[in-house]
Amino acid sequence: MSLLQLLRFAVPSRAARLLGSTPVCAGRAASTRVDLSGILPPIPTPFHEDESLALDQLEKNFQAWEKIPFRGYVVMGSNGEFPLMTAEERVGLVRRVRQLAAPDRLVLAGPACEGTAATLELCHAMAEAGADAVMVINPSYYKASMTEAALSAHFEAVADGSPVPVVLYSLPANTGIDLSAPLLVHLAQHPNVIGVKDSGGDVTKLARVVHETRDQDFQVLAGSTGFLLPAMLVGCVGGVNGLANILGEEVCRLHRLASEGRYADALELHRALLAPNALVTRELGVPAMKAAMDLVGLYGGPCRRPLLPLTPDQQQRVRQAFAKAGFL
Amino acid sequence: MSLLQLLRFAVPSRAARLLGSTPVCAGRAASTRVDLSGILPPIPTPFHEDESLALDQLEKNFQAWEKIPFRGYVVMGSNGEFPLMTAEERVGLVRRVRQLAAPDRLVLAGPACEGTAATLELCHAMAEAGADAVMVINPSYYKASMTEAALSAHFEAVADGSPVPVVLYSLPANTGIDLSAPLLVHLAQHPNVIGVKDSGGDVTKLARVVHETRDQDFQVLAGSTGFLLPAMLVGCVGGVNGLANILGEEVCRLHRLASEGRYADALELHRALLAPNALVTRELGVPAMKAAMDLVGLYGGPCRRPLLPLTPDQQQRVRQAFAKAGFL
Amino acid sequence: MSLLQLLRFAVPSRAARLLGSTPVCAGRAASTRVDLSGILPPIPTPFHEDESLALDQLEKNFQAWEKIPFRGYVVMGSNGEFPLMTAEERVGLVRRVRQLAAPDRLVLAGPACEGTAATLELCHAMAEAGADAVMVINPSYYKASMTEAALSAHFEAVADGSPVPVVLYSLPANTGIDLSAPLLVHLAQHPNVIGVKDSGGDVTKLARVVHETRDQDFQVLAGSTGFLLPAMLVGCVGGVNGLANILGEEVCRLHRLASEGRYADALELHRALLAPNALVTRELGVPAMKAAMDLVGLYGGPCRRPLLPLTPDQQQRVRQAFAKAGFL
Amino acid sequence: MSLLQLLRFAVPSRAARLLGSTPVCAGRAASTRVDLSGILPPIPTPFHEDESLALDQLEKNFQAWEKIPFRGYVVMGSNGEFPLMTAEERVGLVRRVRQLAAPDRLVLAGPACEGTAATLELCHAMAEAGADAVMVINPSYYKASMTEAALSAHFEAVADGSPVPVVLYSLPANTGIDLSAPLLVHLAQHPNVIGVKDSGGDVTKLARVVHETRDQDFQVLAGSTGFLLPAMLVGCVGGVNGLANILGEEVCRLHRLASEGRYADALELHRALLAPNALVTRELGVPAMKAAMDLVGLYGGPCRRPLLPLTPDQQQRVRQAFAKAGFL
Repeated sequence: MSLLQLLRFAVPSRAARLLGSTPVCAGRAASTRVDLSGILPPIPTPFHEDESLALDQLEKNFQAWEKIPFRGYVVMGSNGEFPLMTAEERVGLVRRVRQLAAPDRLVLAGPACEGTAATLELCHAMAEAGADAVMVINPSYYKASMTEAALSAHFEAVADGSPVPVVLYSLPANTGIDLSAPLLVHLAQHPNVIGVKDSGGDVTKLARVVHETRDQDFQVLAGSTGFLLPAMLVGCVGGVNGLANILGEEVCRLHRLASEGRYADALELHRALLAPNALVTRELGVPAMKAAMDLVGLYGGPCRRPLLPLTPDQQQRVRQAFAKAGFL
Repeated sequence: MSLLQLLRFAVPSRAARLLGSTPVCAGRAASTRVDLSGILPPIPTPFHEDESLALDQLEKNFQAWEKIPFRGYVVMGSNGEFPLMTAEERVGLVRRVRQLAAPDRLVLAGPACEGTAATLELCHAMAEAGADAVMVINPSYYKASMTEAALSAHFEAVADGSPVPVVLYSLPANTGIDLSAPLLVHLAQHPNVIGVKDSGGDVTKLARVVHETRDQDFQVLAGSTGFLLPAMLVGCVGGVNGLANILGEEVCRLHRLASEGRYADALELHRALLAPNALVTRELGVPAMKAAMDLVGLYGGPCRRPLLPLTPDQQQRVRQAFAKAGFL
Repeated sequence: MSLLQLLRFAVPSRAARLLGSTPVCAGRAASTRVDLSGILPPIPTPFHEDESLALDQLEKNFQAWEKIPFRGYVVMGSNGEFPLMTAEERVGLVRRVRQLAAPDRLVLAGPACEGTAATLELCHAMAEAGADAVMVINPSYYKASMTEAALSAHFEAVADGSPVPVVLYSLPANTGIDLSAPLLVHLAQHPNVIGVKDSGGDVTKLARVVHETRDQDFQVLAGSTGFLLPAMLVGCVGGVNGLANILGEEVCRLHRLASEGRYADALELHRALLAPNALVTRELGVPAMKAAMDLVGLYGGPCRRPLLPLTPDQQQRVRQAFAKAGFL
Repeated sequence: MSLLQLLRFAVPSRAARLLGSTPVCAGRAASTRVDLSGILPPIPTPFHEDESLALDQLEKNFQAWEKIPFRGYVVMGSNGEFPLMTAEERVGLVRRVRQLAAPDRLVLAGPACEGTAATLELCHAMAEAGADAVMVINPSYYKASMTEAALSAHFEAVADGSPVPVVLYSLPANTGIDLSAPLLVHLAQHPNVIGVKDSGGDVTKLARVVHETRDQDFQVLAGSTGFLLPAMLVGCVGGVNGLANILGEEVCRLHRLASEGRYADALELHRALLAPNALVTRELGVPAMKAAMDLVGLYGGPCRRPLLPLTPDQQQRVRQAFAKAGFL
């Protein structure tokens, strides 16, 4: 019985049992370092108008993306609409992306569920499907109960049990919870936790986390192009940036310029990207990112509901922002 | 192929297709009024220590609950840990509760998912499993996109497609989103929307919603015992109250006293319930509610992770609060 | 040298010194109970178009207000635009109101400043100007430093030094800080603290505070007409309600009906007041309250900047809300 | 009658009248550019134990500060405890600082009050007392009324009337309001608005404001050492940093390294400053900043209440943070 089958029928207690009693500690095996340096676009999931998966369109997007010097891909992140998909769809998409991506490109998969055991099951299934590492956002529904102790226990259980390395993921705009610097520094000590994608935009915090984990081989990724440049200045190694789905070449060039310390050139590019980026992330979200992909010749397509399509007015704003910045 | 099977394999697009193209409008059939007046405990899901379902313990709890004059039960609400369960488990629990509850008791089931189509699939499956109505909390992950327009479209699609009446559910402490009075008043006009459970605690808002929906046969339920009495004074018809899992007789008596206008007696009881209620809801959440159930001879048991068990100190606080108020 | 003069020249350290070293404990003298039961409108400060004080208009308003069975008046509350006035103006207004109000009507004065010593100076000056008690909102600028310990020390220092009794004042919508139930219960033990005006709208909290201070002769006032009725049901003795500036007779009638346990009649009136009240408090604030006063034949007039006058559209909304509810 | 006297007796309407009717437009005269490039410590106000002003200690501090290559000083910022001081004290302190600072050092004074007219009066008085420019934080008490329109009107009135240039000031942690990028960009067009001190820490926003005001001679200052380096990378010209009160040499060195593009050296210093900075700003606030000044041989002394002195435990944390980072 494959893990995917297991996933379909098992009650979470199975994983809990495994987790609780066996001294597997898969994480210990994760000593081969996974280098996250670079840009990893959090790819969107293409849908047809009836909300069914448009895997043919995914292939077409990959034909373009594979020519861009990405470090790899994040599959089933927030831009991938993971909360709007079934567990099977999520795992299936990881498998498909692993096939479409060149072998030397990383595939980071998003297995997060509200439950610890359910998250762990998806870690196994996604690893089996070819993920090199998992990127795990915190549970957030029971906000008042998500104390530092509860979050710490959750991530430690996931890291203990995951067969592939774990990248933490903080996105306070969506979860209402910011993984604190002390929590990140604490979790960085776990041998199977290799980094964090932080989308909060607080560069002071990023610098502090980089500094305080300097002995832990812990890699910090900027969660938006808006602060990729300053984040790299203070020691972040790369980014998981929605804008890279649309303007992959440019975001990779920004990363390269920053890596080489060519800050003046980097700054100019950074500035050109600011307005388009703000629109397709904070302001109008996933529907705008997909709309912009359509504008540049990729397949964006519709989102699943409750995410609404852009209004004509919003669509116009997206077009103008990219045109004004010289990208259309 | 049963709906439950369908649920297991169908991609959400199926429901979307149904929803989008067919003029089913199941809601129109919902003209037989569902009377929500009374107390409906949002029952917890019993687990064994390994996080597997403890259905035997559920039966034992029902032996006690069925002697209490509840109006019915809410299955798979927040206290039922619905985000920590699979779709199959959720539907299965609704089916089991329908069997355990007397036929004249309402079963309100919680089908909410982040996706509109997924929510609708669970509406169908839970109706087929015996739910008299569904209680639907709003999606909240894509917070910035959850505008009034998006929430309205979501709930209207659910109400259009649900084969049983819909009760809206607002719990800002968990979702970070408060369903506004104007939104509730707007949705109250839908023929398949019959009420709301509001856990925000803003009695001014409840009164306004009661008042502005007085011509719509829209029923408002208080989401906590903390404001059940003042909420009933301003026209709410009952409550979905976590405390009723523990002290069902007392909460039902409070409801009866308030219904009969015996406010002096009601107030005395209300006051006695305040401190214990605060502890098992806002302050310490589901683990405390389960711990208190254990104290009064019901089965509470553990929660699924990431919800942690109470510390000994917290356990002591729960015991003292119930003892001091005269309930132990 | 009068206290008012002292106020003008003294450095705050003077008060601090008095406070620190002398065993005055003026509060101890406050054993004559001040009964807050009833309605106390938080009167607005009338200004001319050039922002100078319009004391003649204040007199005209008082000719109307004095015919209404108010318990008294709150001078220099938030509706009085206290943060937009000088200390001299604030004390002067208290003095004028004391002259205009009948001797048996209470004058509650707002002395709050960010500084403890400055607040205490105004307590003295306002008491000398005729205030029966002071209503003190918490400091809030240094939010992160305003811990329970800091707030407790602040209020205790004020209560120790104030020559008249102290009513606490919580308005989280403006200060970003909600005086917690445990803090209120703690401060209720101080012999010179006689009550609280709570504008947060959380009736559960009000009930808890009433219940836990039942042995302390501590009086709880509802800070808005929106929850006056349910608040009185759970034991609050009255209200400080902006709407009473406009519809004083109606708010007093609501208080009387609730006091007499005539809840059905009270509820009807309560409902009629909800929409107009929401508009002149939470939604459009002081400018709307003043605009509504103009509509009913009182003097509202302009606010001081940065508070802007209503737009024509907003003015129309206010007129319609009061007309629709039958008050124009 | 001097402006200071005027200030003492005038009702705000006077200023409003001046403001409203006269075509003074002092701001137009502000064409001589005020260069904000560099570090300007927001100096604390020294108090004796009885809360009276300790001007002798201020002199001693200036003997040290004047040897450090600061661009100038901010007087009566948040670290100066301006909300805890009278208008006279605030103006007096500006005058004293102007005398203590070398002529080529800028004096930025904080005139902000909740009222527009009162703020304007202090602008005049502080300009007369020697301020080169004013740094104006937004009003925040009437939060719901502080719309973009109201804030814009407020700052425009202040900029119209101020005899010296205006630096905007955003500190959302204290005011609960973040001056938005569009608002800043709009206000940057005013000829008498020369920059902003932004303490929000959102470097993406800072970059956007720098970029969108590149044609307006608008200078952006980082409000904390925590993000000074990344802020300078994206085009900020300097900082107003509480830590500079304590470690002025180091913060100036960080500024110089960043200005010269020596990012590697800058980064090392930046990292060393992170932990001490966090403690004396976000975490423990003004009392901690003063405590740290005492540790390095300057005069910190007590704060005015309601700001409490550090607990022994907190004091120990401050000492350790500075020692561990090599500054003690």
